[in-house]
Amino acid sequence: MSGTARGRRPGAPDTRAAILASARTRFAERGFAGTTIRAVAGDAGVDAALVHHYFGTKDDLFMAAMQLPVDPREVIAPVVAQGPDGAAERFLVAFLGVWEDPELQPTLVAFARGLMDPDASRLLSEGFLPVVLQPVGVALGLERPERRMTLVASQVIGLILLRYVLRVEPLASLSRDELVATYAPTLQRYLTGPLP
Amino acid sequence: MSGTARGRRPGAPDTRAAILASARTRFAERGFAGTTIRAVAGDAGVDAALVHHYFGTKDDLFMAAMQLPVDPREVIAPVVAQGPDGAAERFLVAFLGVWEDPELQPTLVAFARGLMDPDASRLLSEGFLPVVLQPVGVALGLERPERRMTLVASQVIGLILLRYVLRVEPLASLSRDELVATYAPTLQRYLTGPLP
Repeated sequence: MSGTARGRRPGAPDTRAAILASARTRFAERGFAGTTIRAVAGDAGVDAALVHHYFGTKDDLFMAAMQLPVDPREVIAPVVAQGPDGAAERFLVAFLGVWEDPELQPTLVAFARGLMDPDASRLLSEGFLPVVLQPVGVALGLERPERRMTLVASQVIGLILLRYVLRVEPLASLSRDELVATYAPTLQRYLTGPLP
Repeated sequence: MSGTARGRRPGAPDTRAAILASARTRFAERGFAGTTIRAVAGDAGVDAALVHHYFGTKDDLFMAAMQLPVDPREVIAPVVAQGPDGAAERFLVAFLGVWEDPELQPTLVAFARGLMDPDASRLLSEGFLPVVLQPVGVALGLERPERRMTLVASQVIGLILLRYVLRVEPLASLSRDELVATYAPTLQRYLTGPLP
């Protein structure tokens, strides 16, 4: 995870794990907005400065708590840097680069399966969307970024479920190029097209 | 469920329930194609004719095993009857008519949550798609109906998850008209537009 410092003192791994466990519980029970670094530190019996030391910002702590094999913010950053024109196609190429990686895919599929778990689903709706997706919409300068990014999410999550979790054919066998050509017009319209 | 006859003899409800339990197990373990009425009857210790008597065809038995509060084939039939032009908009209106019904929604949401369960997900990918969705693509006379209908499913399932299961805002608060205007162009392109 970016922004994550590794502890070097004896016993540090336990402290890191305790902070991470507290963070997961807090984020799940209170959502992203309702969780503070101070509260997580209190639950773990450590000082807030130590949480910052190990995990960086609250956004970074949240991403660590999600336990994803890649930080989606790092995947999306170069997509956003080039502006809204063609962003959907660039996003799909970057997205497939991660999801089609045989080393990453099993962990990502397990994560997607967990979306239906009540705890994890709150992490998604109250954390992942505001921390990862909404900043993308803002950085791209989109009009009504929340609406547009949730529309993007509604298509991408369905693709993940059918192709990677349920492996529904023929979707599971489409090539990367076919997927990009199929879904880029949908996502680009959600990003920048006319909407009600 | 359409095509379902109710038993009238004493003890019939137990027989119906036993057949349904056998059907659910078979469909989950063997998929739709790998399940026969004869095998379900054998598991339940009854004659195949009795399965037909209670549940009709194998498609009907499958829909009964899904335990949905409405038969999606009945919802989709009038959409299909008017042909492919405008089918996406008509589908969305019919779909929202069911999902926005406060009496039906809790059961539908529970069903959607169950999609991630390994048993139920096989029912979806190996049953729901071939029994409900593929016939729609064929009836509409679509070119490559399997591909097009799985694309439709990939958007509709994502919409269901974000709006009804996770209740992500602002998607959860969009009006029916906004949803139709937002998603109809996507679904119509998947049905009849140019695709790779």
